[in-house]
Amino acid sequence: MMNAATVWADVERIREVGPVVHNLTNYVVMNTTANALLALGASPVMAHAMEEVEEMVGIASAVVINIGTLDAVWIEAMERALEAAAAGRVPAVLDPVGAGATRLRTRTAHRLLETGAVTIVRGNASEIGALHSEGVRTKGVDSLAGAETARPAAEAMVGRYGCVVSVSGVEDLIVGPESALRIANGHPMMTRVTGLGCTASALIGAFAAVNPERTLAAAHAMAVMGVCGEMAAETCPGPGSLQVRFLDALYALEHGDLARRLRVREA
Amino acid sequence: MMNAATVWADVERIREVGPVVHNLTNYVVMNTTANALLALGASPVMAHAMEEVEEMVGIASAVVINIGTLDAVWIEAMERALEAAAAGRVPAVLDPVGAGATRLRTRTAHRLLETGAVTIVRGNASEIGALHSEGVRTKGVDSLAGAETARPAAEAMVGRYGCVVSVSGVEDLIVGPESALRIANGHPMMTRVTGLGCTASALIGAFAAVNPERTLAAAHAMAVMGVCGEMAAETCPGPGSLQVRFLDALYALEHGDLARRLRVREA
Amino acid sequence: MMNAATVWADVERIREVGPVVHNLTNYVVMNTTANALLALGASPVMAHAMEEVEEMVGIASAVVINIGTLDAVWIEAMERALEAAAAGRVPAVLDPVGAGATRLRTRTAHRLLETGAVTIVRGNASEIGALHSEGVRTKGVDSLAGAETARPAAEAMVGRYGCVVSVSGVEDLIVGPESALRIANGHPMMTRVTGLGCTASALIGAFAAVNPERTLAAAHAMAVMGVCGEMAAETCPGPGSLQVRFLDALYALEHGDLARRLRVREA
Repeated sequence: MMNAATVWADVERIREVGPVVHNLTNYVVMNTTANALLALGASPVMAHAMEEVEEMVGIASAVVINIGTLDAVWIEAMERALEAAAAGRVPAVLDPVGAGATRLRTRTAHRLLETGAVTIVRGNASEIGALHSEGVRTKGVDSLAGAETARPAAEAMVGRYGCVVSVSGVEDLIVGPESALRIANGHPMMTRVTGLGCTASALIGAFAAVNPERTLAAAHAMAVMGVCGEMAAETCPGPGSLQVRFLDALYALEHGDLARRLRVREA
Repeated sequence: MMNAATVWADVERIREVGPVVHNLTNYVVMNTTANALLALGASPVMAHAMEEVEEMVGIASAVVINIGTLDAVWIEAMERALEAAAAGRVPAVLDPVGAGATRLRTRTAHRLLETGAVTIVRGNASEIGALHSEGVRTKGVDSLAGAETARPAAEAMVGRYGCVVSVSGVEDLIVGPESALRIANGHPMMTRVTGLGCTASALIGAFAAVNPERTLAAAHAMAVMGVCGEMAAETCPGPGSLQVRFLDALYALEHGDLARRLRVREA
Repeated sequence: MMNAATVWADVERIREVGPVVHNLTNYVVMNTTANALLALGASPVMAHAMEEVEEMVGIASAVVINIGTLDAVWIEAMERALEAAAAGRVPAVLDPVGAGATRLRTRTAHRLLETGAVTIVRGNASEIGALHSEGVRTKGVDSLAGAETARPAAEAMVGRYGCVVSVSGVEDLIVGPESALRIANGHPMMTRVTGLGCTASALIGAFAAVNPERTLAAAHAMAVMGVCGEMAAETCPGPGSLQVRFLDALYALEHGDLARRLRVREA
């Protein structure tokens, strides 16, 4: 079972190893997710050119695919990166940003899942719901619903694709093949900073790079997101400061912070 | 007539509704403009692929087009987004970044204006001047001149395209079909933060989403930019902190801040 | 010989002139490098479209090429920008991000160097080493080695391409045709902020715009990076704050800061 000590063991391992996390992500969050990975102790790279994407996967310990500003060229590169990840047994995270908002996003997320290479999916309830059922509507890229509402969709995806599904919300829900966890950390002001969901997906990549138990890797990353978000939000005047302090919290995170704050239970 | 109460009514409406603002903007400012929209209370989306751009316009309450890092592919997507906006009666903002600096930028801005879909244009005096007259030179993307110098150009554009024109400067000048306003808020240090002009354009999108009176929507957004910029700049050690505190100020803005600080007059 | 006064003279000149620095750089750092240039007093532009890249070089006082998120389209634009720079005698900086990590990056850096238009190259020891010898391995985009280890590679590049080579590390090494310098400023926490290497390259562009002595221009920029990084890192809780305070330090830099802190020697 997951607890502060298991999360901390992964954090220490990331800081020690500095795993290379290869991101094919959206333009909006490239800077902030790279900074979050560096603050945690990982080593981010960004590369999307067809001529180098497989080679870069070859030196990476995890791949993170994020469709937030997708187009045809990037989709092809993402597919190739996933194939290279599968071939090299590199864990791969998919963030289906805006699935349900447009058909291109829903279709692309399905296409990437169909590669069979995705190890962990992270999205909000609307996105995960939309991947399961065409009827679910997404309001832009922000979710309208709590994570729990997407549980049937998450379980169906786990069954169909053999991946772990992490649903972000007031409480995060992480569903794996054999267990499910709920994490009740975080702070409402985090929804007023762009790309913290994308950051969560990037951090999952770092945890998956050092922990082969994928359900735990996803849950550990969500725990660190939530705990650091709480620490950053305390006495915080607004989302500008929150973004800055969140990176500081990732960098300064100690075992005691996790021990005091972590709120996890089986789901 | 515009005053602190009319600005505040729009701010409250944005916070209540959380309008989806669809941005086709430049790579430099995607993160910071998304954060500004979120801090204000709006819901930003970014999407530029031809396969989804019209569909995304369909769920948006405003579209913001910014040519700061344009190329042929993006220009086509921008044109399509504007056509979809016109068809769906979605207000559209154009930020002609660097018009006058290269022929491509000047020509593209004209091409986008010729769609007839642009509701509000926001630029600095050089950019607005260059759209009116080929002779005006722009120094890169920064303006050489005060807003007032672009008044004839702004009035000509209002007449020709039926849009509102907002010219940024030490004093902002907002010219509509029936009235013109000057806003004397802001702080010189704001010119040392990249993309605050682009942020102004994005915020105009949010105000246009909730206020059909376009001249007021543009002026309200510029007022909020200026007032929050002032609040952020006070006792501020430099532009790094200014960028952070500006987002905090957008988030924490109260009616009293506007009442105390707003400096607006008819022009 | 370089000292605080020679660095300061360039800083004052940049603040006075506000040179336009044209960047073709990677998506991750566009915002932060534009902000660093503005905080220093320069005027950044970003433009990569084939239709405008030469025209934009024509109004620039320096060009900065950074291959951090390269692809075929961008490489062609970078080559064209370098040719325009050479034709117009505009100094050009190359940042070969990730050279050695993939063949595309190593090959592209060589191709750009072969234009003969590159005035100054800035990279870490792995990148510079990889450009000299195929055998050098890069771990993603972060360096494994100290600057001094790349000295033979740097000297060979100076001989072959007639450029200045600046190698970043705990101590920076700047090698020119006639002299070499070491700068021992900076702070370890700077490696936990993405894109500070890219920022160094951008600032070298600003210094090269005002100082025709290229070895000094590169060294002055590295000195300002290191001194401002130290000032930002003092009492700093983490890399989020460091990024903000670094921009504040660039903006507020005084001659006394350089006089007190600069640690430079001939190498």
